[in-house]
Amino acid sequence: MEQSYTLNELASLVDGTVSGNGDTVIKGLNGIEQASGEEITFITNRKMVELLDHCKAAACIVPENIDGLNIPTLQVQNPDLAAAVIHNHLLKQPFKPQGVHQSAVIGVDCLIPDDVTISPLVSIGDRVRVGHGVTLYPGVVIGDDVVIGDDTVIHPNVTIAKQCLIGSRVILYSGVIIGSDGFGYATDGKGCHVKKPQVGNVQIDDDVEIGANSCVDRAAFGTTRVRSGTKIDNLVMVAHNVDIGENSILVGQVGIAGSTTLGRNVVLGGMAGIGGHLSIGDRVMVAGMSGVHSNLKDGEVVGGAPAFDIKKWGRATAAYARLPDMVKEIRRLRRELERLDQLVEGSGHE
Amino acid sequence: MEQSYTLNELASLVDGTVSGNGDTVIKGLNGIEQASGEEITFITNRKMVELLDHCKAAACIVPENIDGLNIPTLQVQNPDLAAAVIHNHLLKQPFKPQGVHQSAVIGVDCLIPDDVTISPLVSIGDRVRVGHGVTLYPGVVIGDDVVIGDDTVIHPNVTIAKQCLIGSRVILYSGVIIGSDGFGYATDGKGCHVKKPQVGNVQIDDDVEIGANSCVDRAAFGTTRVRSGTKIDNLVMVAHNVDIGENSILVGQVGIAGSTTLGRNVVLGGMAGIGGHLSIGDRVMVAGMSGVHSNLKDGEVVGGAPAFDIKKWGRATAAYARLPDMVKEIRRLRRELERLDQLVEGSGHE
Amino acid sequence: MEQSYTLNELASLVDGTVSGNGDTVIKGLNGIEQASGEEITFITNRKMVELLDHCKAAACIVPENIDGLNIPTLQVQNPDLAAAVIHNHLLKQPFKPQGVHQSAVIGVDCLIPDDVTISPLVSIGDRVRVGHGVTLYPGVVIGDDVVIGDDTVIHPNVTIAKQCLIGSRVILYSGVIIGSDGFGYATDGKGCHVKKPQVGNVQIDDDVEIGANSCVDRAAFGTTRVRSGTKIDNLVMVAHNVDIGENSILVGQVGIAGSTTLGRNVVLGGMAGIGGHLSIGDRVMVAGMSGVHSNLKDGEVVGGAPAFDIKKWGRATAAYARLPDMVKEIRRLRRELERLDQLVEGSGHE
Repeated sequence: MEQSYTLNELASLVDGTVSGNGDTVIKGLNGIEQASGEEITFITNRKMVELLDHCKAAACIVPENIDGLNIPTLQVQNPDLAAAVIHNHLLKQPFKPQGVHQSAVIGVDCLIPDDVTISPLVSIGDRVRVGHGVTLYPGVVIGDDVVIGDDTVIHPNVTIAKQCLIGSRVILYSGVIIGSDGFGYATDGKGCHVKKPQVGNVQIDDDVEIGANSCVDRAAFGTTRVRSGTKIDNLVMVAHNVDIGENSILVGQVGIAGSTTLGRNVVLGGMAGIGGHLSIGDRVMVAGMSGVHSNLKDGEVVGGAPAFDIKKWGRATAAYARLPDMVKEIRRLRRELERLDQLVEGSGHE
Repeated sequence: MEQSYTLNELASLVDGTVSGNGDTVIKGLNGIEQASGEEITFITNRKMVELLDHCKAAACIVPENIDGLNIPTLQVQNPDLAAAVIHNHLLKQPFKPQGVHQSAVIGVDCLIPDDVTISPLVSIGDRVRVGHGVTLYPGVVIGDDVVIGDDTVIHPNVTIAKQCLIGSRVILYSGVIIGSDGFGYATDGKGCHVKKPQVGNVQIDDDVEIGANSCVDRAAFGTTRVRSGTKIDNLVMVAHNVDIGENSILVGQVGIAGSTTLGRNVVLGGMAGIGGHLSIGDRVMVAGMSGVHSNLKDGEVVGGAPAFDIKKWGRATAAYARLPDMVKEIRRLRRELERLDQLVEGSGHE
Repeated sequence: MEQSYTLNELASLVDGTVSGNGDTVIKGLNGIEQASGEEITFITNRKMVELLDHCKAAACIVPENIDGLNIPTLQVQNPDLAAAVIHNHLLKQPFKPQGVHQSAVIGVDCLIPDDVTISPLVSIGDRVRVGHGVTLYPGVVIGDDVVIGDDTVIHPNVTIAKQCLIGSRVILYSGVIIGSDGFGYATDGKGCHVKKPQVGNVQIDDDVEIGANSCVDRAAFGTTRVRSGTKIDNLVMVAHNVDIGENSILVGQVGIAGSTTLGRNVVLGGMAGIGGHLSIGDRVMVAGMSGVHSNLKDGEVVGGAPAFDIKKWGRATAAYARLPDMVKEIRRLRRELERLDQLVEGSGHE
């Protein structure tokens, strides 16, 4: 099902330089171990050259400083990026709309164009607007008044609650929950928690991807927002009224508490937790499992719980393992100091 | 769709005092930025007064010590609580049952009253009892012998496994799993794990809310219990045979291991982990990302992993960042002590 | 519905020794508090003997060194294991296939034998092969070209994406997502993330169990693998290209980053996080909430984040709570040393 291209054609896609036979035919891209004789593979550094010895690939994408391999190569500045661009190109298929399956249940006053695939057992509420080229997999549930942009793909068993807005070319993986109520209660004098109605919504902008079983809660008032190009991994929790900037990366099991704002190109490592009502600047990076309790400026890189400067944190973690030794050394210093003190005092200095 | 009330009418709901025109008509409640001229908004402290300058709200709920605003105000002891109570009141709608959708699949010997909404593509097992005013959203799966109390709302794609008991006015958000098997195995001499059958169930009491994709496992024997008024956020894990007391709060991504008992009004911060077979007293508070490894008495407030007294933990985390400096200082002390020792020893004190 | 056996019959199952009436009839197994007069219960140590005072059980499984109880006993080496084996035996039922429910939607060219239960509202793609004795609960979604082995049970609302392979006697609990795309992007010069197509699959081997709402991502290339006998708890995240060895245990909310390999009989405590591209040996144990950043050899036992030897970690955590005291003691040492230094220097040693 993959397309055929010559190595020269692929080179022009990624501004690369061919060594060897530029007419080599490429039908796919694969890993070094998996690649067949009609596929191209890629390496990202010089150490990986030896892995090519037993590789059957037709050609290899390589960094610019690597030359003289036994197979045709495509030299590029960033092989990882070039491989992704080429792989997407090779896999590109015209969208084949399958229409609305008869077992899907559609509400009233919806706008659903012909060129969509709405799979079996999908449920769509009232007044829903679906873009062109959209795919809804089985078990998807869409609430009332939801809007879904063009070419968006929604995997099985996803829930999008009422009034939420989903952009174009968005991918929501299985089990994602968009627009569940935010977690907000006011506690009365008897310790009972009174629910604060969550009357806002969620807006997921273009080109966002959200991983399996992740949740983005609807705002108390206003909008919880995930801005364009941001990629979210599995089992991530985004609380109400959070605003995540463009092209950020949230690795698996991250949690962000309510009303926190993230800048663009922020990277949160796996299981990192960000407190509520914080302002996190552009390009901030947070190490996995860290806990952020305070605002962070553009470009800060932090680790630890509570998190602080990543270099200081690295030194602190190294020292941490030696804490028991430090305790002993302090005791020794105390004893020796006392012995010395007795000596000095005893010698009548005063 | 919201109801209309005068400010005086709302004041009587929350035992508040009106300043300005008590006949002001209120049709809704909204945030300061979102509120329109027919809505009431609220502030919780004096700093927020300036935010009202550009606010279009018809009136504002304020703390008791705030007076003399340009718009009608409703003074109350706890504006957050009053806003929640008023908002719920304004949003209150008579339940409009839609009956059982034809695409829902219902087992045998179920008791389902007429005044319910059972949405498309819901699956209900055998001998299930559903209360009055219940809403089951699309994709909900209910196992055999489940009981659901009155006015409970179960959002899309929730699973409730066989024999579990759900109270009245419970809200289960999308993707919640109630009554999946507890995680229990016995390991044989070859290192293989033999499943321990989990033959208990789960009981969720009245007025409990459980957030998106959270899980409450069924007991090995007996019952896993979440008691009335407790609110659980998204992606929380409650293991088998846990018993959570009344009006507790579990923030997102918390995990509680098997057979642990929590008292009432316990608060667990986001991502906190509680070990198994522990007893956690009433009103205990655990900081986010903390790990509790031991029993806690009523009213204890802890942080850290392993968790200890929150004040001590606060001082320890402050010292932690200075660990590398401490290491250096200890080395300096050692050197200086040795120099001094040589001096003293060299001077012939002995 | 449980079978009836004599105590002697059960003894032969687990290589145990009966004291008292071996003809006692047993119809079930239950906890000490729940057991009725036709059920057997079990204790795992001497301290539990007193719990039997008010127990109504017909008999009790006990450790080998316990004797002389008032009820018939079954002495075994490992009561926990014997109880699991006996309980499974008592609960064993012949599988009663219910065929394919009319509301299930099945693709083309599937191989589905007669002796299966495919519940209401299940969706199955094209070319899917289902084994004998398989149960698919409501709301399950199976992608194209999936293979499912014999006697596997898939609970409600599970998603298995295209091309994934599921072994025999596997149990997938509600909300599990198998084969969602791995989280892989290449970032271009403008900070935009280009998706790396994830063209591999997932293979779940025989006798694996995966808990509610856990996710196992499909490989970028090749296969993400969970080997036979491994048991995974709820809300666990297994990233692309991970390979988990036989009979391992992953407790709730664990996360494993991409391309990491685990040996056999590994145990990961709750919320532990394992970094990417690591090699974790056989029988490694990681304490709950720990973060593993480096390779671990067979049999290593670690704790902390970053994780190190568990005994050292235990001492370090104990010292951690005393950090503020250490800071003060170091300051005191400094002051006293300076005082002493002045004394010594002042006395003209030089």
